[in-house]
Amino acid sequence: MHAPPDDLPRIAADILSRLRERRPRVHCMTNNVAQAFTANVLLAVGALPSMTISPNEIAAFVARCDALLINLGTFDDERRAAIEIALQHVAKRDLRWVLDPVFIDRSPLRAAYARALANRHPTTIRLNEAEFLALSAGGADENSLAHYAARMRAVLARTGATDVVTDGARIVKIGNGHPLMALVTAMGCAGSALIAACHVVEDDPLRASATALIVLGIAGEMAGARARGPGDFAVEIIDALHLLDREILLNRMRVT
Amino acid sequence: MHAPPDDLPRIAADILSRLRERRPRVHCMTNNVAQAFTANVLLAVGALPSMTISPNEIAAFVARCDALLINLGTFDDERRAAIEIALQHVAKRDLRWVLDPVFIDRSPLRAAYARALANRHPTTIRLNEAEFLALSAGGADENSLAHYAARMRAVLARTGATDVVTDGARIVKIGNGHPLMALVTAMGCAGSALIAACHVVEDDPLRASATALIVLGIAGEMAGARARGPGDFAVEIIDALHLLDREILLNRMRVT
Amino acid sequence: MHAPPDDLPRIAADILSRLRERRPRVHCMTNNVAQAFTANVLLAVGALPSMTISPNEIAAFVARCDALLINLGTFDDERRAAIEIALQHVAKRDLRWVLDPVFIDRSPLRAAYARALANRHPTTIRLNEAEFLALSAGGADENSLAHYAARMRAVLARTGATDVVTDGARIVKIGNGHPLMALVTAMGCAGSALIAACHVVEDDPLRASATALIVLGIAGEMAGARARGPGDFAVEIIDALHLLDREILLNRMRVT
Repeated sequence: MHAPPDDLPRIAADILSRLRERRPRVHCMTNNVAQAFTANVLLAVGALPSMTISPNEIAAFVARCDALLINLGTFDDERRAAIEIALQHVAKRDLRWVLDPVFIDRSPLRAAYARALANRHPTTIRLNEAEFLALSAGGADENSLAHYAARMRAVLARTGATDVVTDGARIVKIGNGHPLMALVTAMGCAGSALIAACHVVEDDPLRASATALIVLGIAGEMAGARARGPGDFAVEIIDALHLLDREILLNRMRVT
Repeated sequence: MHAPPDDLPRIAADILSRLRERRPRVHCMTNNVAQAFTANVLLAVGALPSMTISPNEIAAFVARCDALLINLGTFDDERRAAIEIALQHVAKRDLRWVLDPVFIDRSPLRAAYARALANRHPTTIRLNEAEFLALSAGGADENSLAHYAARMRAVLARTGATDVVTDGARIVKIGNGHPLMALVTAMGCAGSALIAACHVVEDDPLRASATALIVLGIAGEMAGARARGPGDFAVEIIDALHLLDREILLNRMRVT
Repeated sequence: MHAPPDDLPRIAADILSRLRERRPRVHCMTNNVAQAFTANVLLAVGALPSMTISPNEIAAFVARCDALLINLGTFDDERRAAIEIALQHVAKRDLRWVLDPVFIDRSPLRAAYARALANRHPTTIRLNEAEFLALSAGGADENSLAHYAARMRAVLARTGATDVVTDGARIVKIGNGHPLMALVTAMGCAGSALIAACHVVEDDPLRASATALIVLGIAGEMAGARARGPGDFAVEIIDALHLLDREILLNRMRVT
């Protein structure tokens, strides 16, 4: 397996600048719990979120967005219908999209649906270890992640104490982050939305996915240095995403 | 076109006091992304929010509220059914209501629906420039706003770097506000809810609508003076709405 | 009526420690407005929230959770169907659950539904005075609360300036809390979720319910000592829940 691209630091810094210039439209089909935090995370890095899930108008929104997030955290018949319409438009437009199979370890039905969606060419699948085990029905080590990514021809981004991002051929391990990230609801969902935003401004799906998690992890460290607890941490990480610049990114990135 | 009413500063200060005394009930049919922030903005000025959108009980809530907000940010069949019931009760009770046609520039279906609702006598329509263009299919200058307001017999409140509020005969331009307001999700939606609250305590729809945006704009300036980024800005603006008093309002109001 | 249990201070402190060790899974069927704040409150005390309301998967989530919250703040046909499924699984598993009949004073239909649910053996019913009046159709004094609790064989937790918690035989009055709690949306809903979490780690429903409200009230006082208004109060109370320890709890508890 190849190490992370040598130019990742420079590219990551470039992606951050491009987000702020391009202001990509990211349409998020995400759960109610995550919507406001996800929208504020996207706005903080310069992206423009939209969030409708109505089957009546999902086509119009997907037709006008630059990338799509499909998060399974709320999952009902109406959303399934809307996701189906959205994916048809994704295929037509060759749009990049991110799959976030939230909590599929809790619901076999949701896991089965996530497996079906994983076969429909998401650019990146972002999940945690328990969700990966439910998705792949295999092991959780790096080789299992890489094999699954190669088989699905997708980038797999498994977040945790160390984030692992792989496209099957290359692997990036990200040491950035802070323990309080696990105590703020929707942090993973917001990370998935950031990945979708980065896909708009960077062609290489691996570099784009890794950059999103590096940016979120460094913002988490900046927030953690100021926060007393998870309440102000959630506020500070939004500020940090807004304040993060090229120099901070290059100094703080911890990637192997 | 007439300039803003001479007594606007005094009236605006009175409206703020009346909100805190009267504690009006504002029922908000709004999108999921905006619900919590909108509720906290209303609570911060003394109003009492409620938020149900179920067709089963919307009649009961509209029957017991003092003003209504209809925000199209989430838009599905169930919400359309509930909006229809709500508007029938609005007509019966002669209740004031605010229309917020969020993102109608992205969805032709939603734009068509907003145009139909605009014909049903909203007291105020609050929107941004792109949404006004989609609603009116005309120009975006002040004259276009005034003509549209006169034609609909509604107040039009177009927010942006300068907010413009007009009833067709009079026009108020509000210079208060802060750039970080654009980086917090649901800020516009919360402004629409504030307008609905002000309608309860002030008979003149123009003065009520302008006051809501002046109050939000000044709170934004107070928040902007303390905030490092959009995260704590969203927190500080709630505090500022709570702390804002007559003297601050009179000193800071920038209206022409 | 018996006074509060003598060992309540020690038990309350133990419950706090047990929450952090056990990390109970609390499934919350709650309204959209409250979801994110409720999730962050649960995370701050160490509990693990989940929130789906889809009839398709509610059984899977209830089967894997340690306690359930049913909050009526959003109330539609789909949620009623999901609640029915959830309660069937609650009965099978003998799971503890909390009923929060939000705003039943506004909607007779919702009140009737809440009365039907109250007959299905919730462990605790958490509400405010207006909601209790709508639920019981009787008086609001302590005796009425106690009689209702005895009749329903449930703990009744009526929050307000003083919280009253009773199982009909015993009564606990909690003086902890802060006025800004009433200006943050979903504070009551989050309190109900905390009660559900405490039921997982404490067998006595009265002690568990009282502890949750003591913990929230003390966190409110800690937040109130630092906050300028309801915006940062909502942030600080999450931090306080995270920082609250045995010593603070024992020093600050005000119970009669």
